Amino acid sequence: MKILALAGGVGGAKLVDGLARILPPEQLSVIVNTGDDFEIFGLNISPDLDTVCYTLAGLANPITGWGQKDETWHTFQTVAHLGGPDWFRLGNKDLGTHLFRTEGLRLGKRLSEITLELCERWGVKHPVYPMSDDPVRTLVHAKDGSTLGFQEYFVQRACAPEVEKFEFKGVESSSPVGGAIAAIEEADVVLLTPSNPWVSIEPILAVPEYLERISQKPVIAVSPIVGGKALKGPAAKMYHELGIQPCASAVANHYRDFLNGFVLDTIDADELEKIERWRIIPLVADIVMKDQQDRVRLAEEVLAFSEMVLNRSR
Amino acid sequence: MKILALAGGVGGAKLVDGLARILPPEQLSVIVNTGDDFEIFGLNISPDLDTVCYTLAGLANPITGWGQKDETWHTFQTVAHLGGPDWFRLGNKDLGTHLFRTEGLRLGKRLSEITLELCERWGVKHPVYPMSDDPVRTLVHAKDGSTLGFQEYFVQRACAPEVEKFEFKGVESSSPVGGAIAAIEEADVVLLTPSNPWVSIEPILAVPEYLERISQKPVIAVSPIVGGKALKGPAAKMYHELGIQPCASAVANHYRDFLNGFVLDTIDADELEKIERWRIIPLVADIVMKDQQDRVRLAEEVLAFSEMVLNRSR
Repeated sequence: MKILALAGGVGGAKLVDGLARILPPEQLSVIVNTGDDFEIFGLNISPDLDTVCYTLAGLANPITGWGQKDETWHTFQTVAHLGGPDWFRLGNKDLGTHLFRTEGLRLGKRLSEITLELCERWGVKHPVYPMSDDPVRTLVHAKDGSTLGFQEYFVQRACAPEVEKFEFKGVESSSPVGGAIAAIEEADVVLLTPSNPWVSIEPILAVPEYLERISQKPVIAVSPIVGGKALKGPAAKMYHELGIQPCASAVANHYRDFLNGFVLDTIDADELEKIERWRIIPLVADIVMKDQQDRVRLAEEVLAFSEMVLNRSR
Repeated sequence: MKILALAGGVGGAKLVDGLARILPPEQLSVIVNTGDDFEIFGLNISPDLDTVCYTLAGLANPITGWGQKDETWHTFQTVAHLGGPDWFRLGNKDLGTHLFRTEGLRLGKRLSEITLELCERWGVKHPVYPMSDDPVRTLVHAKDGSTLGFQEYFVQRACAPEVEKFEFKGVESSSPVGGAIAAIEEADVVLLTPSNPWVSIEPILAVPEYLERISQKPVIAVSPIVGGKALKGPAAKMYHELGIQPCASAVANHYRDFLNGFVLDTIDADELEKIERWRIIPLVADIVMKDQQDRVRLAEEVLAFSEMVLNRSR
């Protein structure tokens, strides 16, 4: 069975890592959100791509969820001391990735090529595709009338502004990545990992061709909302501000038009019936991944569930 | 007495540092070469400005002559490990300066403003001016027909290509810095520090207005050539390749049209007569600055000599 996963940052990266420890590279590939990408200090930064790749490479910082483990901070400290922008923390090793990527883009390479080069160097064998080689930028339109770049909202403002709506600037004219399209076509099941539906999964689905092609496959989603709260990040807060009660079934409803299977946490088992009523096959599981064992266990359950959903959809 | 110094990298920075320990900020200002500036990894790097400022700030690496002391190298090592360009060594703290500068330029600040901000933060009180806020790029036209950016020639190729001629790209349309013009006007004596005449001092003099205004002042140069060899860098090699015997008097001849005083090393005392014949007042001194004591001693001698040249030119 071949799985194609869509992923944003930490939550998605964890499940993809669990899957990558079970499935060989031919059976698992990942399309990663690049709506979070931004430029600072003249550098091109791709936070979600880095989180997924660092996680698969065993380089991720297990405490922060972003950046590299065993980091040093001399450059960042220097910038802060000089009075430069210090809201986006850049470790010295992490910066090496950004310098490499920026230089590659300056030389005219595509982001997907550079990602492949990085993965080769890091020993990441499972194909990882940025959702597009064209710049797409997630903008947060806040209720106070302001418009913020995603990192500005997410990091600088710590998700404080209330969300009115999201915009994925440039997405209509962006092209999907050829390898990602092929990976969707070859996939038996498409997996929406437990990443933020609004700002991690939706930007990917908004790139031309993906949703259309994904809709023709059995699609499974894993809820990033457990007990009404987001596993990490502002997903629950966003649902709330957008007038939707944050809960597992709200996530299932989000993808309802094309969803075949949905994995929700044991704590949310009471939402099971509602989901079944939408003709979505539910799986109740322990979704919270605290350690590597959890990642592999959940990956195994998701794989068995995928087989089941795939068989039922035949 | 007010001194306006023109400086490139290490040699110039050392003498300026010696002068700065004697003269208050009102009596010494510096115009620094930016022809060496370049872009890598999307970052704007100003090697000579950094060398002068780091030296005045007490942050310079005393062994290499470039970069900061007590450096760490994690970012550079990461880039090298990833297979990125590793010919220009960037320490972690040094990178902080480049990020700060690049972000400032991206925000539309002028290089001279950013330099002022950096100096304020570093406690550098003597005014340091980049020669221009407009990009000027020193190109090396080699005898093999190739054209190299200066850092490509200087660092990546270790000055190996034989020089045919130099070009200061963009210099004709570059503007002088207002503060630098005022500093020249206010100066009693203009000092050409022992930096490379071809690629450190000439680019500054090629910026519109500077040479014209400097020529109206008593001008003193300190030889960067001692015993036929450059104190540091490729100056002697360049003279040789350009068909000129590298020696102290060749430097004096370089500036002959507007030079009033010339400081040469004791080892080159036999060239004294030749220089006098050109109606340039010579001073024989120990030019080599091995430590801070040497810098201050030479600065004192240069200041006394400046008084003398100034009085004679009145």
